[in-house]
Amino acid sequence: MEKVTSPAGMQKLADELRAQRKRIALVPTMGFLHDGHMSLVAEARRQCDIVVMSVYVNPTQFVAGEDFATYPRDMAHDEKKALDGGVDFLFSPPDGEVYPEGYLTFVEVDKVSRILEGEFRPGHFKGVATIVSKLFNIVKPHVAIFGQKDAQQAFIIRKFVKDLNFGIEIIVAPIIREPDGLAMSSRNVYLSPDERKRALALYHSLKLAGDMLRKGEVDLTHVRDRMTALIAAESEGRIDYIQFVDPNTFDLIGNSIGLNAVQAVLAVRIGKTRLIDNMIFDVRKP
Amino acid sequence: MEKVTSPAGMQKLADELRAQRKRIALVPTMGFLHDGHMSLVAEARRQCDIVVMSVYVNPTQFVAGEDFATYPRDMAHDEKKALDGGVDFLFSPPDGEVYPEGYLTFVEVDKVSRILEGEFRPGHFKGVATIVSKLFNIVKPHVAIFGQKDAQQAFIIRKFVKDLNFGIEIIVAPIIREPDGLAMSSRNVYLSPDERKRALALYHSLKLAGDMLRKGEVDLTHVRDRMTALIAAESEGRIDYIQFVDPNTFDLIGNSIGLNAVQAVLAVRIGKTRLIDNMIFDVRKP
Repeated sequence: MEKVTSPAGMQKLADELRAQRKRIALVPTMGFLHDGHMSLVAEARRQCDIVVMSVYVNPTQFVAGEDFATYPRDMAHDEKKALDGGVDFLFSPPDGEVYPEGYLTFVEVDKVSRILEGEFRPGHFKGVATIVSKLFNIVKPHVAIFGQKDAQQAFIIRKFVKDLNFGIEIIVAPIIREPDGLAMSSRNVYLSPDERKRALALYHSLKLAGDMLRKGEVDLTHVRDRMTALIAAESEGRIDYIQFVDPNTFDLIGNSIGLNAVQAVLAVRIGKTRLIDNMIFDVRKP
Repeated sequence: MEKVTSPAGMQKLADELRAQRKRIALVPTMGFLHDGHMSLVAEARRQCDIVVMSVYVNPTQFVAGEDFATYPRDMAHDEKKALDGGVDFLFSPPDGEVYPEGYLTFVEVDKVSRILEGEFRPGHFKGVATIVSKLFNIVKPHVAIFGQKDAQQAFIIRKFVKDLNFGIEIIVAPIIREPDGLAMSSRNVYLSPDERKRALALYHSLKLAGDMLRKGEVDLTHVRDRMTALIAAESEGRIDYIQFVDPNTFDLIGNSIGLNAVQAVLAVRIGKTRLIDNMIFDVRKP
Protein backbone atom coordinates (compact mmCIF):
# COMPACT_ATOMS: atom_id res chain seq x y z
CA MET A 1 0.00 0.00 0.00
CA GLU A 2 1.25 3.46 -0.93
CA LYS A 3 0.36 6.53 1.11
CA VAL A 4 -0.22 9.69 -0.93
CA THR A 5 -0.76 13.13 0.57
CA SER A 6 -0.38 15.48 -2.41
CA PRO A 7 -3.49 16.04 -4.55
CA ALA A 8 -1.33 16.76 -7.59
CA GLY A 9 0.68 13.57 -6.97
CA MET A 10 -2.49 11.48 -6.59
CA GLN A 11 -3.91 13.00 -9.79
CA LYS A 12 -0.73 12.18 -11.73
CA LEU A 13 -0.90 8.60 -10.45
CA ALA A 14 -4.53 8.35 -11.51
CA ASP A 15 -3.75 9.66 -15.01
CA GLU A 16 -0.99 7.09 -15.36
CA LEU A 17 -3.20 4.23 -14.10
CA ARG A 18 -5.94 5.22 -16.54
CA ALA A 19 -3.44 5.38 -19.40
CA GLN A 20 -2.51 1.79 -18.44
CA ARG A 21 -6.24 1.01 -18.77
CA LYS A 22 -6.49 0.05 -15.09
CA ARG A 23 -9.90 0.45 -13.50
CA ILE A 24 -9.85 2.59 -10.37
CA ALA A 25 -12.28 2.34 -7.44
CA LEU A 26 -12.48 5.08 -4.81
CA VAL A 27 -13.70 4.64 -1.24
CA PRO A 28 -14.01 8.13 0.28
CA THR A 29 -13.96 8.15 4.10
CA MET A 30 -13.38 10.47 7.02
CA GLY A 31 -11.20 7.80 8.63
CA PHE A 32 -11.56 6.16 12.07
CA LEU A 33 -12.29 3.08 10.03
CA HIS A 34 -14.72 0.41 11.11
CA ASP A 35 -16.11 -2.73 9.47
CA GLY A 36 -18.65 -0.64 7.55
CA HIS A 37 -15.82 1.12 5.75
CA MET A 38 -14.04 -2.18 5.19
CA SER A 39 -17.11 -3.64 3.50
CA LEU A 40 -16.84 -0.76 1.01
CA VAL A 41 -13.20 -1.65 0.39
CA ALA A 42 -14.15 -5.28 -0.21
CA GLU A 43 -16.75 -4.15 -2.76
CA ALA A 44 -14.16 -1.87 -4.39
CA ARG A 45 -11.74 -4.80 -4.59
CA ARG A 46 -14.39 -6.88 -6.39
CA GLN A 47 -15.06 -4.07 -8.88
CA CYS A 48 -11.68 -2.75 -9.95
CA ASP A 49 -7.92 -3.30 -10.45
CA ILE A 50 -6.92 -0.48 -8.15
CA VAL A 51 -8.49 0.51 -4.83
CA VAL A 52 -7.94 4.04 -3.57
CA MET A 53 -9.21 4.98 -0.12
CA SER A 54 -9.28 8.61 0.89
CA VAL A 55 -9.14 9.56 4.55
CA TYR A 56 -10.01 13.20 5.07
CA VAL A 57 -12.12 14.87 7.74
CA ASN A 58 -13.75 17.47 5.52
CA PRO A 59 -14.30 20.74 7.38
CA THR A 60 -16.85 22.18 4.91
CA GLN A 61 -19.43 19.48 5.66
CA PHE A 62 -19.48 20.25 9.38
CA VAL A 63 -22.02 22.85 10.34
CA ALA A 64 -21.25 25.55 12.94
CA GLY A 65 -21.36 24.02 16.42
CA GLU A 66 -20.77 20.47 15.20
CA ASP A 67 -17.94 18.11 16.09
CA PHE A 68 -15.31 18.92 13.46
CA ALA A 69 -12.57 19.56 16.05
CA THR A 70 -13.40 16.48 18.14
CA TYR A 71 -14.34 14.09 15.31
CA PRO A 72 -12.39 10.89 16.09
CA ARG A 73 -9.11 10.54 14.22
CA ASP A 74 -6.53 7.72 14.35
CA MET A 75 -4.29 7.59 11.31
CA ALA A 76 -2.10 4.73 12.54
CA HIS A 77 -5.20 2.57 13.08
CA ASP A 78 -6.59 3.62 9.67
CA GLU A 79 -3.35 2.78 7.87
CA LYS A 80 -3.30 -0.70 9.39
CA LYS A 81 -6.98 -1.32 8.56
CA ALA A 82 -6.51 -0.07 4.99
CA LEU A 83 -3.43 -2.24 4.49
CA ASP A 84 -5.20 -5.31 5.87
CA GLY A 85 -8.22 -4.57 3.66
CA GLY A 86 -6.14 -4.55 0.49
CA VAL A 87 -6.19 -0.82 -0.27
CA ASP A 88 -3.60 0.07 -2.93
CA PHE A 89 -3.39 3.81 -2.35
CA LEU A 90 -4.31 5.62 0.85
CA PHE A 91 -4.90 9.28 -0.02
CA SER A 92 -4.92 11.63 2.94
CA PRO A 93 -4.26 15.23 1.96
CA PRO A 94 -3.55 18.03 4.46
CA ASP A 95 -6.27 20.68 4.98
CA GLY A 96 -4.14 23.45 3.52
CA GLU A 97 -3.90 21.66 0.19
CA VAL A 98 -7.59 20.80 0.00
CA TYR A 99 -8.91 24.27 0.84
CA PRO A 100 -6.03 26.69 0.35
CA GLU A 101 -6.41 30.33 1.36
CA GLY A 102 -8.84 32.14 -0.92
CA TYR A 103 -10.83 29.00 -1.72
CA LEU A 104 -14.19 30.00 -3.27
CA THR A 105 -15.88 27.19 -5.24
CA PHE A 106 -18.78 24.99 -4.16
CA VAL A 107 -20.95 22.32 -5.76
CA GLU A 108 -24.56 22.26 -4.69
CA VAL A 109 -27.55 20.06 -5.42
CA ASP A 110 -30.76 22.06 -5.09
CA LYS A 111 -33.88 20.96 -3.21
CA VAL A 112 -32.89 17.49 -1.92
CA SER A 113 -29.95 19.09 -0.07
CA ARG A 114 -32.34 21.14 2.03
CA ILE A 115 -34.63 18.45 3.46
CA LEU A 116 -34.06 15.93 6.30
CA GLU A 117 -30.32 16.04 7.13
CA GLY A 118 -30.05 19.27 5.14
CA GLU A 119 -32.70 20.93 7.30
CA PHE A 120 -30.90 20.04 10.53
CA ARG A 121 -27.41 20.51 9.10
CA PRO A 122 -27.73 23.48 6.69
CA GLY A 123 -24.80 23.58 4.26
CA HIS A 124 -23.77 19.99 5.09
CA PHE A 125 -24.49 18.56 1.63
CA LYS A 126 -22.89 21.53 -0.11
CA GLY A 127 -19.69 20.56 1.74
CA VAL A 128 -20.19 16.90 0.83
CA ALA A 129 -20.84 17.55 -2.86
CA THR A 130 -17.83 19.87 -3.00
CA ILE A 131 -15.30 17.54 -1.36
CA VAL A 132 -16.54 14.50 -3.27
CA SER A 133 -16.30 16.43 -6.57
CA LYS A 134 -12.73 17.36 -5.66
CA LEU A 135 -11.87 13.77 -4.76
CA PHE A 136 -13.39 12.56 -8.03
CA ASN A 137 -11.24 15.02 -9.99
CA ILE A 138 -8.12 14.04 -8.08
CA VAL A 139 -8.54 10.24 -8.01
CA LYS A 140 -10.41 9.90 -11.35
CA PRO A 141 -12.17 6.70 -10.34
CA HIS A 142 -14.30 4.55 -12.63
CA VAL A 143 -16.32 3.44 -9.61
CA ALA A 144 -16.91 5.02 -6.19
CA ILE A 145 -18.40 3.18 -3.21
CA PHE A 146 -20.53 4.78 -0.51
CA GLY A 147 -22.39 3.35 2.44
CA GLN A 148 -26.16 3.10 2.63
CA LYS A 149 -26.08 4.40 6.21
CA ASP A 150 -25.73 7.94 4.85
CA ALA A 151 -28.68 7.37 2.54
CA GLN A 152 -29.38 10.98 1.63
CA GLN A 153 -25.69 11.58 0.98
CA ALA A 154 -25.56 8.57 -1.33
CA PHE A 155 -28.62 9.85 -3.19
CA ILE A 156 -27.14 13.35 -3.56
CA ILE A 157 -23.81 11.99 -4.80
CA ARG A 158 -25.58 9.85 -7.42
CA LYS A 159 -27.55 12.93 -8.43
CA PHE A 160 -24.63 15.31 -8.94
CA VAL A 161 -22.54 12.63 -10.63
CA LYS A 162 -25.33 12.29 -13.19
CA ASP A 163 -26.04 16.04 -13.43
CA LEU A 164 -22.39 17.05 -13.85
CA ASN A 165 -21.55 14.14 -16.20
CA PHE A 166 -18.81 12.72 -13.98
CA GLY A 167 -19.14 9.39 -15.77
CA ILE A 168 -18.45 7.52 -12.52
CA GLU A 169 -20.43 4.49 -11.39
CA ILE A 170 -21.71 4.98 -7.84
CA ILE A 171 -22.22 1.83 -5.81
CA VAL A 172 -24.10 2.05 -2.53
CA ALA A 173 -23.18 -0.83 -0.21
CA PRO A 174 -25.46 -2.14 2.57
CA ILE A 175 -25.31 -0.86 6.14
CA ILE A 176 -23.04 -2.94 8.36
CA ARG A 177 -24.47 -3.38 11.85
CA GLU A 178 -23.09 -4.47 15.21
CA PRO A 179 -24.36 -7.91 16.34
CA ASP A 180 -27.17 -6.23 18.27
CA GLY A 181 -28.26 -4.12 15.29
CA LEU A 182 -26.68 -0.69 15.84
CA ALA A 183 -25.50 0.73 12.52
CA MET A 184 -21.72 1.09 12.52
CA SER A 185 -20.55 4.70 12.68
CA SER A 186 -17.32 6.41 13.65
CA ARG A 187 -19.45 8.55 15.97
CA ASN A 188 -20.58 5.51 18.02
CA VAL A 189 -17.37 5.99 20.00
CA TYR A 190 -18.99 9.05 21.57
CA LEU A 191 -21.62 6.89 23.31
CA SER A 192 -21.33 6.05 27.01
CA PRO A 193 -22.16 2.42 27.91
CA ASP A 194 -25.67 3.47 28.89
CA GLU A 195 -26.16 5.56 25.73
CA ARG A 196 -24.81 2.66 23.65
CA LYS A 197 -27.74 0.53 24.90
CA ARG A 198 -30.29 3.29 24.37
CA ALA A 199 -28.92 3.86 20.83
CA LEU A 200 -30.48 0.55 19.81
CA ALA A 201 -33.82 2.34 19.77
CA LEU A 202 -33.07 3.55 16.20
CA TYR A 203 -32.65 -0.02 14.93
CA HIS A 204 -35.62 -1.29 16.90
CA SER A 205 -37.87 1.46 15.56
CA LEU A 206 -36.89 0.61 11.98
CA LYS A 207 -37.58 -3.07 12.60
CA LEU A 208 -40.97 -2.11 14.03
CA ALA A 209 -41.74 -0.05 10.92
CA GLY A 210 -40.79 -3.03 8.75
CA ASP A 211 -43.03 -5.35 10.71
CA MET A 212 -45.98 -2.96 10.42
CA LEU A 213 -45.49 -2.40 6.68
CA ARG A 214 -45.10 -6.09 6.01
CA LYS A 215 -48.37 -6.71 7.80
CA GLY A 216 -50.07 -4.31 5.39
CA GLU A 217 -50.09 -1.07 7.37
CA VAL A 218 -50.55 1.84 4.93
CA ASP A 219 -50.95 4.75 7.35
CA LEU A 220 -47.44 6.17 7.66
CA THR A 221 -48.51 8.61 10.37
CA HIS A 222 -49.44 5.60 12.45
CA VAL A 223 -46.08 3.98 11.73
CA ARG A 224 -44.26 7.17 12.69
CA ASP A 225 -46.25 7.50 15.91
CA ARG A 226 -45.35 3.95 16.93
CA MET A 227 -41.66 4.54 16.10
CA THR A 228 -41.71 7.79 18.08
CA ALA A 229 -43.23 6.02 21.09
CA LEU A 230 -40.67 3.21 20.91
CA ILE A 231 -37.76 5.66 20.76
CA ALA A 232 -39.15 7.64 23.70
CA ALA A 233 -39.58 4.46 25.75
CA GLU A 234 -36.24 2.85 24.91
CA SER A 235 -33.89 5.81 24.67
CA GLU A 236 -35.44 9.11 25.74
CA GLY A 237 -33.58 10.35 22.61
CA ARG A 238 -34.41 13.65 20.93
CA ILE A 239 -35.84 12.91 17.51
CA ASP A 240 -34.70 15.30 14.75
CA TYR A 241 -36.92 13.55 12.22
CA ILE A 242 -38.58 10.28 11.30
CA GLN A 243 -39.56 10.35 7.65
CA PHE A 244 -40.48 8.14 4.73
CA VAL A 245 -39.06 8.73 1.26
CA ASP A 246 -39.26 7.19 -2.18
CA PRO A 247 -35.84 5.48 -2.42
CA ASN A 248 -35.65 6.29 -6.14
CA THR A 249 -36.24 10.04 -5.86
CA PHE A 250 -35.78 10.83 -2.15
CA ASP A 251 -39.12 12.64 -2.36
CA LEU A 252 -40.89 12.73 0.99
CA ILE A 253 -43.91 10.45 0.98
CA GLY A 254 -47.13 11.87 2.37
CA ASN A 255 -49.34 9.74 4.53
CA SER A 256 -50.31 7.03 2.07
CA ILE A 257 -48.02 4.72 0.19
CA GLY A 258 -48.38 4.48 -3.57
CA LEU A 259 -45.03 2.85 -4.18
CA ASN A 260 -43.42 -0.56 -4.34
CA ALA A 261 -40.75 0.45 -1.85
CA VAL A 262 -40.46 2.95 0.97
CA GLN A 263 -37.34 4.07 2.79
CA ALA A 264 -37.65 5.02 6.44
CA VAL A 265 -34.98 7.53 7.50
CA LEU A 266 -34.42 8.97 10.95
CA ALA A 267 -32.06 11.04 13.04
CA VAL A 268 -32.05 10.87 16.83
CA ARG A 269 -29.83 12.49 19.44
CA ILE A 270 -28.81 10.14 22.24
CA GLY A 271 -27.29 12.43 24.82
CA LYS A 272 -25.00 14.69 22.80
CA THR A 273 -24.49 12.17 20.00
CA ARG A 274 -26.52 12.52 16.84
CA LEU A 275 -27.18 9.18 15.13
CA ILE A 276 -28.84 8.40 11.80
CA ASP A 277 -30.15 5.17 10.37
CA ASN A 278 -32.48 3.96 7.63
CA MET A 279 -34.02 0.92 6.00
CA ILE A 280 -35.70 0.25 2.66
CA PHE A 281 -38.89 -1.82 2.79
CA ASP A 282 -40.75 -3.54 0.00
CA VAL A 283 -44.38 -2.59 0.26
CA ARG A 284 -47.34 -4.74 -0.63
CA LYS A 285 -49.71 -2.34 -2.37
CA PRO A 286 -53.08 -2.20 -0.60
CA MET B 1 -13.91 16.25 -38.53
CA GLU B 2 -16.39 14.16 -36.61
CA LYS B 3 -19.62 15.60 -35.25
CA VAL B 4 -20.67 14.26 -31.84
CA THR B 5 -23.99 15.03 -30.17
CA SER B 6 -24.19 12.48 -27.34
CA PRO B 7 -22.44 13.43 -24.05
CA ALA B 8 -21.90 9.73 -23.24
CA GLY B 9 -20.45 9.16 -26.72
CA MET B 10 -18.11 12.13 -26.41
CA GLN B 11 -17.00 10.95 -22.98
CA LYS B 12 -16.23 7.47 -24.28
CA LEU B 13 -14.19 8.99 -27.11
CA ALA B 14 -12.28 11.13 -24.61
CA ASP B 15 -11.52 8.12 -22.40
CA GLU B 16 -10.21 6.23 -25.41
CA LEU B 17 -8.07 9.16 -26.62
CA ARG B 18 -6.59 9.55 -23.13
CA ALA B 19 -5.85 5.82 -22.93
CA GLN B 20 -3.94 6.31 -26.23
CA ARG B 21 -2.02 9.09 -24.42
CA LYS B 22 -3.32 11.73 -26.82
CA ARG B 23 -3.49 15.27 -25.47
CA ILE B 24 -6.92 16.83 -25.81
CA ALA B 25 -7.66 20.56 -26.12
CA LEU B 26 -11.19 21.91 -25.67
CA VAL B 27 -12.51 25.15 -27.12
CA PRO B 28 -15.94 25.76 -25.57
CA THR B 29 -18.16 28.11 -27.60
CA MET B 30 -21.78 29.12 -28.01
CA GLY B 31 -21.34 28.93 -31.78
CA PHE B 32 -21.96 31.64 -34.44
CA LEU B 33 -18.22 31.40 -34.85
CA HIS B 34 -16.05 34.39 -35.72
CA ASP B 35 -12.30 34.93 -36.03
CA GLY B 36 -12.01 35.31 -32.26
CA HIS B 37 -13.18 31.72 -31.82
CA MET B 38 -10.90 30.58 -34.62
CA SER B 39 -7.88 32.09 -32.88
CA LEU B 40 -8.74 29.83 -29.91
CA VAL B 41 -8.84 26.83 -32.22
CA ALA B 42 -5.43 27.77 -33.65
CA GLU B 43 -4.04 27.96 -30.10
CA ALA B 44 -5.63 24.58 -29.29
CA ARG B 45 -4.03 23.12 -32.41
CA ARG B 46 -0.61 24.34 -31.25
CA GLN B 47 -1.11 22.82 -27.78
CA CYS B 48 -2.55 19.36 -28.34
CA ASP B 49 -2.99 16.29 -30.57
CA ILE B 50 -6.76 16.48 -30.57
CA VAL B 51 -8.92 19.61 -30.81
CA VAL B 52 -12.49 19.40 -29.58
CA MET B 53 -14.79 22.37 -30.08
CA SER B 54 -18.11 22.47 -28.28
CA VAL B 55 -20.98 24.49 -29.71
CA TYR B 56 -23.77 24.89 -27.20
CA VAL B 57 -25.92 27.89 -26.36
CA ASN B 58 -26.13 27.30 -22.62
CA PRO B 59 -29.52 28.36 -21.23
CA THR B 60 -28.41 28.52 -17.58
CA GLN B 61 -25.99 31.39 -18.18
CA PHE B 62 -28.68 33.63 -19.64
CA VAL B 63 -30.46 35.75 -17.06
CA ALA B 64 -34.22 36.34 -17.19
CA GLY B 65 -35.01 38.88 -19.91
CA GLU B 66 -31.80 38.23 -21.82
CA ASP B 67 -31.37 37.05 -25.40
CA PHE B 68 -31.30 33.24 -25.01
CA ALA B 69 -34.11 32.70 -27.55
CA THR B 70 -32.69 35.13 -30.09
CA TYR B 71 -28.98 34.46 -29.57
CA PRO B 72 -27.58 34.01 -33.10
CA ARG B 73 -27.27 30.37 -34.22
CA ASP B 74 -25.98 28.97 -37.53
CA MET B 75 -24.83 25.36 -37.28
CA ALA B 76 -24.02 24.97 -41.00
CA HIS B 77 -21.75 28.01 -40.84
CA ASP B 78 -20.17 26.75 -37.59
CA GLU B 79 -19.49 23.31 -39.04
CA LYS B 80 -17.73 24.80 -42.04
CA LYS B 81 -15.66 27.17 -39.90
CA ALA B 82 -14.70 24.36 -37.49
CA LEU B 83 -13.72 22.07 -40.35
CA ASP B 84 -11.62 24.79 -41.99
CA GLY B 85 -10.00 25.57 -38.64
CA GLY B 86 -8.83 22.00 -38.15
CA VAL B 87 -11.22 20.94 -35.39
CA ASP B 88 -11.17 17.15 -34.90
CA PHE B 89 -14.42 16.73 -32.96
CA LEU B 90 -17.36 19.14 -33.00
CA PHE B 91 -19.45 18.44 -29.90
CA SER B 92 -22.93 19.94 -29.98
CA PRO B 93 -25.32 18.23 -27.57
CA PRO B 94 -29.08 18.77 -27.54
CA ASP B 95 -30.57 20.77 -24.61
CA GLY B 96 -32.50 17.77 -23.30
CA GLU B 97 -29.30 15.79 -22.80
CA VAL B 98 -27.40 18.61 -21.13
CA TYR B 99 -30.13 19.56 -18.65
CA PRO B 100 -32.58 16.68 -18.50
CA GLU B 101 -35.80 17.01 -16.54
CA GLY B 102 -35.14 17.14 -12.81
CA TYR B 103 -31.67 18.65 -13.22
CA LEU B 104 -30.51 20.10 -9.85
CA THR B 105 -26.73 20.59 -9.61
CA PHE B 106 -24.77 23.83 -9.91
CA VAL B 107 -21.17 24.91 -9.50
CA GLU B 108 -20.62 28.35 -8.03
CA VAL B 109 -17.60 30.53 -7.32
CA ASP B 110 -18.33 32.85 -4.40
CA LYS B 111 -17.60 36.59 -4.30
CA VAL B 112 -16.02 37.20 -7.72
CA SER B 113 -19.20 35.86 -9.37
CA ARG B 114 -21.23 38.66 -7.83
CA ILE B 115 -19.28 41.73 -8.95
CA LEU B 116 -19.17 43.50 -12.35
CA GLU B 117 -20.87 41.17 -14.88
CA GLY B 118 -22.26 39.17 -11.94
CA GLU B 119 -23.94 42.27 -10.53
CA PHE B 120 -25.67 43.08 -13.82
CA ARG B 121 -26.28 39.44 -14.76
CA PRO B 122 -27.07 37.69 -11.46
CA GLY B 123 -26.65 33.92 -11.78
CA HIS B 124 -24.73 34.24 -15.06
CA PHE B 125 -21.44 32.87 -13.72
CA LYS B 126 -23.19 30.06 -11.87
CA GLY B 127 -24.49 28.96 -15.27
CA VAL B 128 -21.05 29.36 -16.82
CA ALA B 129 -19.22 27.42 -14.08
CA THR B 130 -21.84 24.68 -14.27
CA ILE B 131 -21.78 24.16 -18.05
CA VAL B 132 -17.99 24.41 -18.24
CA SER B 133 -17.65 21.84 -15.42
CA LYS B 134 -19.97 19.54 -17.35
CA LEU B 135 -18.03 20.04 -20.59
CA PHE B 136 -14.76 19.35 -18.75
CA ASN B 137 -16.17 16.08 -17.39
CA ILE B 138 -17.48 15.06 -20.81
CA VAL B 139 -14.50 16.05 -22.99
CA LYS B 140 -11.76 15.43 -20.37
CA PRO B 141 -9.35 17.93 -21.91
CA HIS B 142 -5.76 18.47 -20.82
CA VAL B 143 -6.01 22.09 -21.97
CA ALA B 144 -8.98 24.42 -22.45
CA ILE B 145 -8.83 27.71 -24.31
CA PHE B 146 -10.95 30.77 -23.54
CA GLY B 147 -10.97 34.30 -24.92
CA GLN B 148 -9.72 37.31 -23.01
CA LYS B 149 -12.79 39.29 -24.13
CA ASP B 150 -14.80 37.58 -21.39
CA ALA B 151 -12.14 38.46 -18.83
CA GLN B 152 -14.16 37.84 -15.69
CA GLN B 153 -15.39 34.51 -17.09
CA ALA B 154 -11.81 33.47 -17.83
CA PHE B 155 -10.78 34.41 -14.29
CA ILE B 156 -13.69 32.48 -12.75
CA ILE B 157 -12.96 29.40 -14.85
CA ARG B 158 -9.30 29.46 -13.81
CA LYS B 159 -10.45 29.81 -10.20
CA PHE B 160 -12.87 26.87 -10.11
CA VAL B 161 -10.51 24.67 -12.09
CA LYS B 162 -7.94 25.25 -9.35
CA ASP B 163 -10.44 25.01 -6.47
CA LEU B 164 -12.09 21.80 -7.70
CA ASN B 165 -8.78 20.17 -8.77
CA PHE B 166 -9.82 19.73 -12.39
CA GLY B 167 -6.16 19.41 -13.36
CA ILE B 168 -6.80 21.21 -16.65
CA GLU B 169 -4.54 23.93 -18.02
CA ILE B 170 -6.55 27.05 -18.85
CA ILE B 171 -5.16 29.22 -21.63
CA VAL B 172 -6.62 32.67 -22.15
CA ALA B 173 -6.05 33.89 -25.69
CA PRO B 174 -5.93 37.60 -26.67
CA ILE B 175 -8.99 39.50 -27.84
CA ILE B 176 -9.37 39.52 -31.62
CA ARG B 177 -10.60 42.87 -32.91
CA GLU B 178 -12.14 44.12 -36.14
CA PRO B 179 -9.77 46.34 -38.17
CA ASP B 180 -11.27 49.44 -36.52
CA GLY B 181 -10.82 48.06 -33.01
CA LEU B 182 -14.24 46.64 -32.06
CA ALA B 183 -13.78 43.40 -30.08
CA MET B 184 -15.23 40.49 -32.03
CA SER B 185 -18.43 39.08 -30.53
CA SER B 186 -21.28 36.96 -31.81
CA ARG B 187 -23.58 39.68 -30.47
CA ASN B 188 -22.09 42.33 -32.80
CA VAL B 189 -24.56 41.06 -35.39
CA TYR B 190 -27.30 42.78 -33.36
CA LEU B 191 -25.84 46.23 -34.11
CA SER B 192 -27.41 48.47 -36.76
CA PRO B 193 -24.91 50.26 -39.05
CA ASP B 194 -25.19 53.38 -36.89
CA GLU B 195 -24.82 51.41 -33.64
CA ARG B 196 -21.83 49.57 -35.12
CA LYS B 197 -20.03 52.94 -35.46
CA ARG B 198 -21.04 54.07 -31.98
CA ALA B 199 -19.87 50.72 -30.53
CA LEU B 200 -16.29 51.81 -31.19
CA ALA B 201 -16.59 54.03 -28.12
CA LEU B 202 -15.70 51.03 -25.93
CA TYR B 203 -12.40 50.48 -27.72
CA HIS B 204 -11.65 54.18 -27.88
CA SER B 205 -12.28 54.60 -24.15
CA LEU B 206 -9.88 51.74 -23.34
CA LYS B 207 -7.23 53.26 -25.60
CA LEU B 208 -7.74 56.58 -23.81
CA ALA B 209 -7.28 54.86 -20.42
CA GLY B 210 -4.08 53.24 -21.69
CA ASP B 211 -2.73 56.59 -22.91
CA MET B 212 -3.47 58.25 -19.56
CA LEU B 213 -1.91 55.43 -17.52
CA ARG B 214 1.18 55.31 -19.72
CA LYS B 215 1.63 59.03 -19.17
CA GLY B 216 1.70 58.39 -15.41
CA GLU B 217 -1.89 59.12 -14.41
CA VAL B 218 -2.57 57.45 -11.02
CA ASP B 219 -6.04 58.83 -10.26
CA LEU B 220 -8.39 56.12 -11.55
CA THR B 221 -11.48 58.23 -10.82
CA HIS B 222 -10.07 60.75 -13.27
CA VAL B 223 -9.47 58.01 -15.85
CA ARG B 224 -13.01 56.70 -15.39
CA ASP B 225 -14.49 60.19 -15.74
CA ARG B 226 -12.66 60.73 -19.02
CA MET B 227 -13.77 57.30 -20.31
CA THR B 228 -17.36 58.05 -19.29
CA ALA B 229 -17.28 61.38 -21.10
CA LEU B 230 -15.82 59.80 -24.24
CA ILE B 231 -18.48 57.07 -24.30
CA ALA B 232 -21.24 59.65 -23.79
CA ALA B 233 -19.89 61.81 -26.61
CA GLU B 234 -19.19 59.02 -29.13
CA SER B 235 -22.03 56.60 -28.46
CA GLU B 236 -24.69 57.87 -26.07
CA GLY B 237 -24.40 54.30 -24.73
CA ARG B 238 -25.69 53.34 -21.30
CA ILE B 239 -22.73 52.37 -19.13
CA ASP B 240 -23.32 49.38 -16.83
CA TYR B 241 -19.86 49.77 -15.32
CA ILE B 242 -16.33 50.99 -15.96
CA GLN B 243 -13.99 49.44 -13.43
CA PHE B 244 -10.36 48.66 -12.77
CA VAL B 245 -9.25 45.29 -11.36
CA ASP B 246 -6.05 43.56 -10.40
CA PRO B 247 -5.67 41.09 -13.31
CA ASN B 248 -4.21 38.47 -10.94
CA THR B 249 -7.05 38.49 -8.40
CA PHE B 250 -9.91 40.34 -10.14
CA ASP B 251 -10.15 42.44 -6.98
CA LEU B 252 -11.59 45.87 -7.67
CA ILE B 253 -8.92 48.52 -7.37
CA GLY B 254 -9.77 51.60 -5.34
CA ASN B 255 -8.72 54.98 -6.54
CA SER B 256 -4.94 54.61 -6.40
CA ILE B 257 -2.82 52.08 -8.20
CA GLY B 258 -0.35 50.05 -6.15
CA LEU B 259 0.19 47.39 -8.78
CA ASN B 260 2.35 46.62 -11.77
CA ALA B 261 -0.65 45.99 -13.97
CA VAL B 262 -4.26 47.12 -14.04
CA GLN B 263 -7.11 45.72 -16.08
CA ALA B 264 -9.82 48.11 -17.23
CA VAL B 265 -13.16 46.35 -17.75
CA LEU B 266 -16.40 47.84 -18.98
CA ALA B 267 -19.90 47.02 -20.14
CA VAL B 268 -21.94 49.41 -22.24
CA ARG B 269 -25.35 49.11 -23.87
CA ILE B 270 -25.48 50.47 -27.40
CA GLY B 271 -29.18 50.58 -28.19
CA LYS B 272 -30.44 47.19 -27.04
CA THR B 273 -27.07 45.46 -27.43
CA ARG B 274 -24.91 44.96 -24.38
CA LEU B 275 -21.18 44.94 -25.18
CA ILE B 276 -18.18 44.23 -22.97
CA ASP B 277 -14.50 44.87 -23.50
CA ASN B 278 -11.30 45.10 -21.49
CA MET B 279 -7.56 45.76 -21.67
CA ILE B 280 -4.65 45.05 -19.36
CA PHE B 281 -2.16 47.87 -18.90
CA ASP B 282 1.32 47.82 -17.45
CA VAL B 283 1.57 50.57 -14.90
CA ARG B 284 4.63 52.60 -14.09
CA LYS B 285 4.53 52.92 -10.34
CA PRO B 286 4.46 56.56 -9.28
